[in-house]
This record gives sequence, structure tokens and C-alpha cells, in this order.
Amino acid sequence: MAYGKTISRVILPEPTISRLPWYLAYLHSQMSHGVEHVSSTQIAKEINVDASQIAKDLSLLSVRGKTRIGYEVGSLVRVLEDYLGFKKAHKAFMIGTGSLGRALIQDSGLTQFGLSIVAGFDVDPSLIGNEINGVPIYGIEELSNRQEETGTEIGILAVPAEHAQDAADTMIACGIKAIWNFTPTRIKASGEIVIQNTSIYAHLAVMYNRLEEKQRML
Amino acid sequence: MAYGKTISRVILPEPTISRLPWYLAYLHSQMSHGVEHVSSTQIAKEINVDASQIAKDLSLLSVRGKTRIGYEVGSLVRVLEDYLGFKKAHKAFMIGTGSLGRALIQDSGLTQFGLSIVAGFDVDPSLIGNEINGVPIYGIEELSNRQEETGTEIGILAVPAEHAQDAADTMIACGIKAIWNFTPTRIKASGEIVIQNTSIYAHLAVMYNRLEEKQRML
Repeated sequence: MAYGKTISRVILPEPTISRLPWYLAYLHSQMSHGVEHVSSTQIAKEINVDASQIAKDLSLLSVRGKTRIGYEVGSLVRVLEDYLGFKKAHKAFMIGTGSLGRALIQDSGLTQFGLSIVAGFDVDPSLIGNEINGVPIYGIEELSNRQEETGTEIGILAVPAEHAQDAADTMIACGIKAIWNFTPTRIKASGEIVIQNTSIYAHLAVMYNRLEEKQRML
Repeated sequence: MAYGKTISRVILPEPTISRLPWYLAYLHSQMSHGVEHVSSTQIAKEINVDASQIAKDLSLLSVRGKTRIGYEVGSLVRVLEDYLGFKKAHKAFMIGTGSLGRALIQDSGLTQFGLSIVAGFDVDPSLIGNEINGVPIYGIEELSNRQEETGTEIGILAVPAEHAQDAADTMIACGIKAIWNFTPTRIKASGEIVIQNTSIYAHLAVMYNRLEEKQRML
């Protein structure tokens, strides 16, 4: 049983977790303007989510605003950052260091949100042995050794779509527990593996289509 | 009325549009192996979507498989690429050329999916006047001129969260019709503007939490 400091963590529904970073972004901006208290109505006005939904989401984290004063910005920021895991350093491997993988390694925003990419892996001999942003790039056959050495549990998948399932199988065999999948391939894995899909190209298709629809209505 | 060649385009529900890139990725991999026909059952097995859902999605595009033969891979790829807009060049501006903006400019994957970033904009004098991957970086005050010159309608928003709404307002005032928002800020805009949110940091939070949940169950 892996208890310890996480014993009191509540399990929130995914839609709630997805909204928390919006609240956090708004609170950060208010904090930078020296604002000390905000109400759910104020947050609602700024981010287009119902005030009652916001109050409900925050109450799941046992945070309650005071009547006529609202939420204390500083402590709400701390609760959200703690819950979201953005203040903890989560080690990750980048699998595939082509265009998108390289770009993500260079995105310092990920570090700000608690993700620390400790190594990259590729099959291209011209990339292996190099560093990107101080991150060493290894051959994929090194994955198992590096995983044991570092205890890394998160793998970011940014290989060509047709190699995505093979790469995922290798990652899982080497002890990776969560795969952040940037490929358009649907990864198959057993239930104990976390698969998080971020299909940026699918979002692109949706955007193109919505844009074209609006233009047709003109 | 802006009709023309788009008159026969069907409007698909967003969940369907989001699934099409998965089908396309699978079909590309089959095509590279010389496979000429696939059934919805085969696609279903590979990408974890019900065969009946796949057949329904494709029938909305007037594509029907033949009994005992299935879909013709090559022509299905063409229909999907055409519908998704991946074969058309859509011009886009990158607003904010810090870490993530720079990374996205360097991701050639976007070009493959029909997005052509023609200029970047920033407020940092040390970035203005430079090029990233051949893409020129201008001061934000140049946005209006460049928009008129190029007719660009898509703006990718990758500024710090607290400047996101201001930057979006500027983009819209300069003629941008669709905003691909990579910030955690919820953008407010009138109904004729397309806002596509890609909250990669929110996905990160969901992944951390799902990983922690699984570990607590061990």
C-alpha cells in the first residue's frame, strides 16, 4: 500500500481537473496585479464558466469562499498548484526527438508545469549521442537501463504515427507507467497504464472545419 | 454568399471530426505496408473505436465499404485528407515567440497537416527582426499590415497567460478569424470568431492525477 502524504488526496472527475488550470491562470494574473480576494462570480465572468460550477469544483478541493469577500487568492493558488502537481518535479522521457519531440524538449513551459524531461530516445544514429537543451539523446535500446537508473515513469510519445504502438510497447516493457501520446495513433495498453492523448493535429482539423463553416455562413 | 467549391461540404459533428485523424493515421500505416482494402472491423481492432461508429462516421462522408472487401485504402485516404483540410495550405501567424511559440514554429508536423506559419509576432525587442526556421519575427504593431498583405486568418496564441486576452483582442481587431489558443487562459470573443483551445498543460495535470491514482491502488 503506497500511502503516506497522498492519503488525503481526493479523486476529482476529469472535467473538473481540466478546468482547474484555467482558474489557476486567472488567479496568477490577479495575483500579479496585487488582488487579494476574488469571488466565483468574478472568475466566472473572466473565463466563461458558470459561477456555480466554479464554486462546486473548488468545494471538491474543500476550498470555500467567504461571503462578500470571496476566495483568498494566494492560498487558492497554493491549493491548486499542489493538487495539479505543477510544483512537483515529474521525470519524463521523450521518445522520438524529431521535429515535435525536439520542440517539446525546448518548451520550458513544461518545466514550469512540473515536467522535467531527463532524456530523449531515438533510432536515428545522427541524433543519438547529441544533446538538445542539455537533455542527452540515447538509442532506444538504452531505455531500460535509463529507466532503472532514474525511476522515470512518464514517457512522451512523439514518434511517426506508424511506429507509435511499437514504441509504446517498448516503453511499457521498460517500466513506463504513463504515456503522453502526441501521435494520432490510438495506443493499446493494459488498464494499469495511463494513456493521455494530446492530438494537436486533430484540433487543427476541427479548427479548419469550424473556420470554413463560419465563412460559408457569411 | 461565399459558396463555390465548398457548397457540397457536409458539416460533421466535432467528435466525428476528431476521430477522422485516427482513421487517417491507421490508413497511412496500412498504405505504407501495401494494404489495399480494410474493413471497419480491422480499423476498430487497431484504434479502439467501435466498428459501427467507424462505419457511421465514414458514411457521413458518403464513404461506404464493400461487403467482404471493405474500404479501398487509397481513396479513403484522399477523402479524409481532403475533408480534414490537411492538403490545403492554411496561413497562420504565431503570436508570442517564446519557448512554446518557437517550438511550434519549428514543428514541421504542422506543415504536413496543412498549417503554414508565415510570420511570428512578439513584444520583446531582442526577438523582433530575427527569423526562426525562416519565419520572420515582427513587432506586434506590425500585425495589421502583415494581415492585410498576406490575408492570414489563423492566429496561434502562445503568449504568457496574463497577456492572452489582450493579444487575442489585438488579433481580432487586425482581421484574424480563428485563434488556436495554447494558453490556459479562456479567451472571450464574439461568436463569429473560432476559438480552438489546446490546453497541453491541462492534459499534463490530468495525466499526473491519473498516474497518482493508479499508484495508490497498488
